[in-house]
Amino acid sequence: MTLPFKKISIVGLGLIGTSILHAINEKKEEVITYAYDIDQRHRDVVSRMKIATFVCNDIHDAIEDVDLVILAVPVGSMKSVAIKISTSLKKGSIITDTGSTKNSVINDVTPFLPNNVYFIPSHPLAGTEYSGPESGFSTLFENRYWLIVYKKETEQTKKLATFFEKLGSIVEIVNAEYHDKILAITSHLPHLIAYTIVGTASDLESDLKNDVIKFSASGFRDFTRIAASDPIMWRDIFLNNSEAVLEMLQRFNEDLLDLQKAIRKKESEKLFSFFSRTRSIRKKIVEAGQN
Amino acid sequence: MTLPFKKISIVGLGLIGTSILHAINEKKEEVITYAYDIDQRHRDVVSRMKIATFVCNDIHDAIEDVDLVILAVPVGSMKSVAIKISTSLKKGSIITDTGSTKNSVINDVTPFLPNNVYFIPSHPLAGTEYSGPESGFSTLFENRYWLIVYKKETEQTKKLATFFEKLGSIVEIVNAEYHDKILAITSHLPHLIAYTIVGTASDLESDLKNDVIKFSASGFRDFTRIAASDPIMWRDIFLNNSEAVLEMLQRFNEDLLDLQKAIRKKESEKLFSFFSRTRSIRKKIVEAGQN
Repeated sequence: MTLPFKKISIVGLGLIGTSILHAINEKKEEVITYAYDIDQRHRDVVSRMKIATFVCNDIHDAIEDVDLVILAVPVGSMKSVAIKISTSLKKGSIITDTGSTKNSVINDVTPFLPNNVYFIPSHPLAGTEYSGPESGFSTLFENRYWLIVYKKETEQTKKLATFFEKLGSIVEIVNAEYHDKILAITSHLPHLIAYTIVGTASDLESDLKNDVIKFSASGFRDFTRIAASDPIMWRDIFLNNSEAVLEMLQRFNEDLLDLQKAIRKKESEKLFSFFSRTRSIRKKIVEAGQN
Repeated sequence: MTLPFKKISIVGLGLIGTSILHAINEKKEEVITYAYDIDQRHRDVVSRMKIATFVCNDIHDAIEDVDLVILAVPVGSMKSVAIKISTSLKKGSIITDTGSTKNSVINDVTPFLPNNVYFIPSHPLAGTEYSGPESGFSTLFENRYWLIVYKKETEQTKKLATFFEKLGSIVEIVNAEYHDKILAITSHLPHLIAYTIVGTASDLESDLKNDVIKFSASGFRDFTRIAASDPIMWRDIFLNNSEAVLEMLQRFNEDLLDLQKAIRKKESEKLFSFFSRTRSIRKKIVEAGQN
């Protein structure tokens, strides 16, 4: 059960970054971890929690001597981080990221990395509505997919996949464009819609708004949970996966318009058959064990 | 802790109806319950589970001798049930319903009830995505709001409120129009949107659809749960609260269009401030203890 890396750097100490640290520590192996975040408060919290071997005030100190660098920053910050670390990376080291968009990260990071390191983009399909260094926990990745983007399997991709598996994940290989499409419909669009409806509710007249909060029945309550996620992370996702999101949004809008018309025209049959159809997708998800 | 009714009839043996039976039985009091459903299978299941004193094959047998009749049928069936029971109700008995729309139920039921009974509409804000007689459980109403519609407090409204409280609910008085508006935004619109996005996903090309199911990350998974709810119940809700739903839907569409434009134009500031604002609503809901 030995982790395939002995020196690991985590850049970005939010939910994902600190969860990786917790998960590494659970293994009780002799791994040296270097933790860095641009935010002093995040570094202080991680120092106090004693979940990294070293908490570095300088990003270069955190990465120059490691076998694996994990960039767990919002996707909008990937480019500036890549520029910063480009001159300090150890020859032969593996760089990965945990961003929710893959095309944009590849475009932002690849040009700035030296030729003697291995950049293998990845994305763990795991998260909660909580963010920040206090929100991490060791079991976040257990039985969750961790997607890796590469075309050819190499010694490095195998090592990285093994590492993610040791953290509890199920590893799958995807292509970047396909990843961004899948995520647009399974994650990005649902978040956009949840943000929208909670925003619509927060614009209601004040009496109505207070009672909406008081009587928030199951549907809305779930949406508010989703819409409580980190605003920086989500701003960056929508800016960096806009094409796929806008395409899915267009399909969604057409379908919603259809239902809207059916309600207006009181088309009973149409509504019933639509609401029956969606049950089968839930059934498949439950069967696939992802519920 | 004595229940204020000794003979209670439950018409409609789905999630809500059977949960009421379970909750009454938990009290271990000498209450006689009469259960009826138009569907033979539902009656058979309830007979086998032995959760009602009598399971009646004729709706008249179920209601003619009771102090309280609870109509727990889809809101689209309220009218036909009201017509059926109108001649058999006991003088002085209380009739309530559990429908998710209140204006339509009042319009559908009131004209057919005799003057010597008391119709007091109500709505428990409780449910799951499961439906049918097997899905009920005794704690469904615990600490959940049960809204009652009346203008003047009477002996009958007090008895009904006490009954709901004994089942574990928090009772609140609302007006029918206001109820329908609140529910449009907290429950009906979220369900409509969840149904839409799951429908959009199920129209994707087959490879993409299979991977959407496989990799359904948190956002989409929550939506499929919501969109697995009973299609008859939800068809009826949209047909019977169309005005309030369409009004809220229009506001939602305007907000979504706004965000769509912000994504297309890459308006970073606007996205960030929108996503930050919605967090506060979640915070208030958590504080209100409804999470």
